[in-house]
Amino acid sequence: MNLHVVILAAGQGTRMRSALPKVLHPVAGKPMLEHVIDSARALAPAGIHVVIGHGAEKVRETLDAADLNWVLQSEQLGTGHAVAQALPHVNDADQVLVLYGDVPLLTVETLKSLIEQTPVDSLGMLTVLLGDPTGYGRILRNAEGQVQAIVEQKDASPEQLQIREGNTGIMLLPGSRIQAWLTGLSNNNAQGEYYLTDVVELAVSQAVEVSVVQASDELEVMGANNRQQLSVLERAWQAREAERLMVQGASLADPARLDVRGVVSIGRDIRIDVNVVLEGRVVIEDDVTIEAHCVIRDSVIKAGSVIKAFSHLEGAEVGENCDVGPYARLRPGTVLQRKAKVGNFVETKKTVVGAGSKINHLSYVGDAEVGEGANIGAGTITCNYDGVNKFVTRIGDGAFIGSNTALVAPVSVGRMATTAAGSTITQDVPEATLGVGRARQRNVEGWKRPVKQPKD
Amino acid sequence: MNLHVVILAAGQGTRMRSALPKVLHPVAGKPMLEHVIDSARALAPAGIHVVIGHGAEKVRETLDAADLNWVLQSEQLGTGHAVAQALPHVNDADQVLVLYGDVPLLTVETLKSLIEQTPVDSLGMLTVLLGDPTGYGRILRNAEGQVQAIVEQKDASPEQLQIREGNTGIMLLPGSRIQAWLTGLSNNNAQGEYYLTDVVELAVSQAVEVSVVQASDELEVMGANNRQQLSVLERAWQAREAERLMVQGASLADPARLDVRGVVSIGRDIRIDVNVVLEGRVVIEDDVTIEAHCVIRDSVIKAGSVIKAFSHLEGAEVGENCDVGPYARLRPGTVLQRKAKVGNFVETKKTVVGAGSKINHLSYVGDAEVGEGANIGAGTITCNYDGVNKFVTRIGDGAFIGSNTALVAPVSVGRMATTAAGSTITQDVPEATLGVGRARQRNVEGWKRPVKQPKD
Amino acid sequence: MNLHVVILAAGQGTRMRSALPKVLHPVAGKPMLEHVIDSARALAPAGIHVVIGHGAEKVRETLDAADLNWVLQSEQLGTGHAVAQALPHVNDADQVLVLYGDVPLLTVETLKSLIEQTPVDSLGMLTVLLGDPTGYGRILRNAEGQVQAIVEQKDASPEQLQIREGNTGIMLLPGSRIQAWLTGLSNNNAQGEYYLTDVVELAVSQAVEVSVVQASDELEVMGANNRQQLSVLERAWQAREAERLMVQGASLADPARLDVRGVVSIGRDIRIDVNVVLEGRVVIEDDVTIEAHCVIRDSVIKAGSVIKAFSHLEGAEVGENCDVGPYARLRPGTVLQRKAKVGNFVETKKTVVGAGSKINHLSYVGDAEVGEGANIGAGTITCNYDGVNKFVTRIGDGAFIGSNTALVAPVSVGRMATTAAGSTITQDVPEATLGVGRARQRNVEGWKRPVKQPKD
Repeated sequence: MNLHVVILAAGQGTRMRSALPKVLHPVAGKPMLEHVIDSARALAPAGIHVVIGHGAEKVRETLDAADLNWVLQSEQLGTGHAVAQALPHVNDADQVLVLYGDVPLLTVETLKSLIEQTPVDSLGMLTVLLGDPTGYGRILRNAEGQVQAIVEQKDASPEQLQIREGNTGIMLLPGSRIQAWLTGLSNNNAQGEYYLTDVVELAVSQAVEVSVVQASDELEVMGANNRQQLSVLERAWQAREAERLMVQGASLADPARLDVRGVVSIGRDIRIDVNVVLEGRVVIEDDVTIEAHCVIRDSVIKAGSVIKAFSHLEGAEVGENCDVGPYARLRPGTVLQRKAKVGNFVETKKTVVGAGSKINHLSYVGDAEVGEGANIGAGTITCNYDGVNKFVTRIGDGAFIGSNTALVAPVSVGRMATTAAGSTITQDVPEATLGVGRARQRNVEGWKRPVKQPKD
Repeated sequence: MNLHVVILAAGQGTRMRSALPKVLHPVAGKPMLEHVIDSARALAPAGIHVVIGHGAEKVRETLDAADLNWVLQSEQLGTGHAVAQALPHVNDADQVLVLYGDVPLLTVETLKSLIEQTPVDSLGMLTVLLGDPTGYGRILRNAEGQVQAIVEQKDASPEQLQIREGNTGIMLLPGSRIQAWLTGLSNNNAQGEYYLTDVVELAVSQAVEVSVVQASDELEVMGANNRQQLSVLERAWQAREAERLMVQGASLADPARLDVRGVVSIGRDIRIDVNVVLEGRVVIEDDVTIEAHCVIRDSVIKAGSVIKAFSHLEGAEVGENCDVGPYARLRPGTVLQRKAKVGNFVETKKTVVGAGSKINHLSYVGDAEVGEGANIGAGTITCNYDGVNKFVTRIGDGAFIGSNTALVAPVSVGRMATTAAGSTITQDVPEATLGVGRARQRNVEGWKRPVKQPKD
Repeated sequence: MNLHVVILAAGQGTRMRSALPKVLHPVAGKPMLEHVIDSARALAPAGIHVVIGHGAEKVRETLDAADLNWVLQSEQLGTGHAVAQALPHVNDADQVLVLYGDVPLLTVETLKSLIEQTPVDSLGMLTVLLGDPTGYGRILRNAEGQVQAIVEQKDASPEQLQIREGNTGIMLLPGSRIQAWLTGLSNNNAQGEYYLTDVVELAVSQAVEVSVVQASDELEVMGANNRQQLSVLERAWQAREAERLMVQGASLADPARLDVRGVVSIGRDIRIDVNVVLEGRVVIEDDVTIEAHCVIRDSVIKAGSVIKAFSHLEGAEVGENCDVGPYARLRPGTVLQRKAKVGNFVETKKTVVGAGSKINHLSYVGDAEVGEGANIGAGTITCNYDGVNKFVTRIGDGAFIGSNTALVAPVSVGRMATTAAGSTITQDVPEATLGVGRARQRNVEGWKRPVKQPKD
């Protein structure tokens, strides 16, 4: 048996009120369609066929990959038509799984269960128990529990309207039947469209077995047609992610106030305070504490480190037992070695800070190599840019950079060297030497303060 | 017909435990009473009469306006008495709408509906379906659905207690009847007060038609008597505002974590991340992204700009495709022209930053005019204040301000001019010239580091 | 009568997936067990006996105090066994209250009510009404409402499963019976443990009166066995705390977005915006406003002060009518006298700032004494550290520190003295004198900008 996945992603999404095609709207920082494609990939299918229409070029351009077969549905003639476009030829031994590009929370587990429970020549359906089934097609079952039909809201009897099991549209179709079924669909309805769900009726009439799997909850099969629904999916995703991290051993001060957009892996005994945002690939090792209001993107934080409130990390590597923030901004290429400290209102970029070194206050350190045990005083600026070129600053082990020092790169401050506070350092300072670049102070007695000037 | 609106705002609000009169407590940054007055104004009535009592002076002083008739109710003798105070004379053809100064979420739509559905000589009532009606007066209707009476909680039969339709106290009274009705009220009750709701009984007994409109939900007619209720109203208001922005095309990472206090207008495809606070008049154009934890007040953000995390804008105008933050603080009078960048730990005030210019790191730029394509280095300070006067700094197109430069205003740095890192610039730097104001560096060999001093 | 409290705290808490013993996991910043101990202390008992097992040393070391009797339960043979270990001898006139180290939200009021309502020779039980009682032992009562037995989930009839009153395990045992009862317990069950709850059956069979008090809600008696439950307790605690502050007269922009970890006392008419975190001992006086996204730890904020967004206070004292932030970081030992201002990107530490003095922008002021009415310019750095020693900076009343001044401590700037912008001040500046320590500016005409260098 070969599994083919067809993902329907041609819809316009007018209610999004957006220039972006609906399926590209992100959940957890990733386009909805990409979530669905990734779930499909996890099934290792023979083919993934993505049916695109509105905004087709943009969708393809955004998500193109070698394993995807893009199918342009130039006219939107319904889900049945879309599947037929995608798979003009299917072998009898194949199965065709139909997914939707705007239903991003569907889990691989549920899909695997559907596949496992559907014999190759049967029709598999994913249904869902709904708190309020209004608007959904209802699943009619006979006394033995076998599916007989799907009845739409408008056609349902009062008794049928009480049924809480709804149709999700997600189906697994037998290759041996699909061509005939799709050809047999009618567009004799209000919208003039060919509906895939009508194959259920065909299956029943042909005595084809219908296997049903129920989704674990409503959110798993919920689609987003507007921004409100998108936000519901977003929060549901985040709740799931928070749950996952707590199960793995993270303490969350408020699971409803964590946002994960990407792939976060954690060790044991992590503490994450309120309003933390994690993006991209983030690795958090054992015993790390992340305080409130931090934004961390594509970074590694090693065991025992503390990231204090209001810190912003991007593309950074924080070594063991480091102390970062509050208000530290680590930009890409920042590497803190163990026990390094970066404090408030400090920005670092493309900089290695050696073990135990400190940059505690109001500094900009970019394109720098800082040795071990160095102390960078408050108000230090590496002048790494001359308007066109960037240059490197090297600071040796045990060096002491006095406060308010400007280091005009390329420049080196040697091992155990010192710079005097308020200096502009333009030449290298050799090892164990004091570099001074400031004027001598004089006091002007009898100097008069300015007086209030008349407004013009 | 003339519409008169009477707003009851005399209550003490003891449970607020506050020196501020109850009706001045804010919801979404605006006193509750002001919300009610604004809704009344939207009906374009002939008069708005605000009945004040506790904290009368403070209330009037806070919200005084030419279109308001302030009525002092020196004794609090009940709602019926209050309305009588406000409108000693009404014409037969008038209608009197009674609102409450502590019920701020009532929508103009609901009020318009009440007015439209109430013939001029009928009594109009606003009722509400309640999840838990405990404590509310219940609406008794006859078999035809016509209102017969309001029965208070304590007087209700077990069967009547099951009624979920409650009285809101909001009424539209016919001018032809109001005088007689108010005169006919009795204060023969536990509180010794004249209750406005007793007019319903009078209307029914006189065979006056009673028109009923139901509020859209409980929150719309909820009043705040303590801080807990105030917070419920606040969150309800915010939920409504978030919904409005999503309908208009904003993606909200978490609708429950957006706070809007003022008037926000947005374009299409806005993204607002978690924990953003918008205050005053804020205009956000198409394709703007506002990252997490930003506070934005009275500002305009033009198309395509990104406001990064932890930014604080007030009275600022951000041009198209600008890049602001993280940790940028734009104070009043800041104007960024297109593609300007203001980065971390930078404060600007009364400053125009020309197109494409950059102030990327740790700077204070105030009372300045920065041309196009200029680069302001890290640690730049405009010394705009001599203790009594403020002066302007002018920086020309394409100028390059070296890091750690102090610009002592009034001073100009010309077009394509440069300042050396670490300089204090006290005189103008002409076009294409280098300004240097720093000491030459010397290295002191054999200098000894300080040693640990004994503690005193 | 003497009250003895036994707290069971020996459990492993495997599902926490943690190196920390379960009872040390914090709720609201305090170990769960410490919450329980503090509640026990509020009852002023004759003894508090804490039964420890897993991680016993760590638990004892963390919470040790003179009033606690630590009992090591080397084998975990059940709750009955644990109580027997703790109290080998009890007097007939004593009562023994059994609490659980992982049930931190139980209130002192509920415990007092249990004690008051339980005669000294009766068995007192705390029960709870549950929304979903699945898994709980159900309380069986007879027609008179008297407790007959506890039936476990697995043994309950379909009818008994409908009972919503559940057993909490919290009990008050009569000293006259406890020895006999504990000795009479059997471990003839699946776990082979001695269960304390079996004493209920013994009491009933011996016609001992069983007094029952119901907990006020489920959360009060909820235990935490994993991080998800821990987060539920955390939010419940925070909701309770927010409620308490609102009752006392604080306006909270969002009660769900306040975190209190410690002891907060407030005056009237406090406003706290969203996402504020309060830790340790925090005192907030009348009319204080705390804006969004602030972290405040062990600090006092006096009447009328405003703490603006993104501020971080620790060990600070803010005087009356001060203005702090946004982005102000006040570190331990900071004292602001009345009407002082500390602005954006400013860090203070061990510093007194006199009345009306201002440190508005991008400064580090540490180990300093600032007089009244002084103005500290942008970019000021107190160079308080020479690598080994810390020194004090003194700034007199009315002094004006020019922007970008480095003050190399120990150093004094006298009353009404001034420092020129860009100066490094290494010697004292006498009263009313100008201190200048900067180079004279020169302009280099015809200077050529650097050109783009080839990449290596």
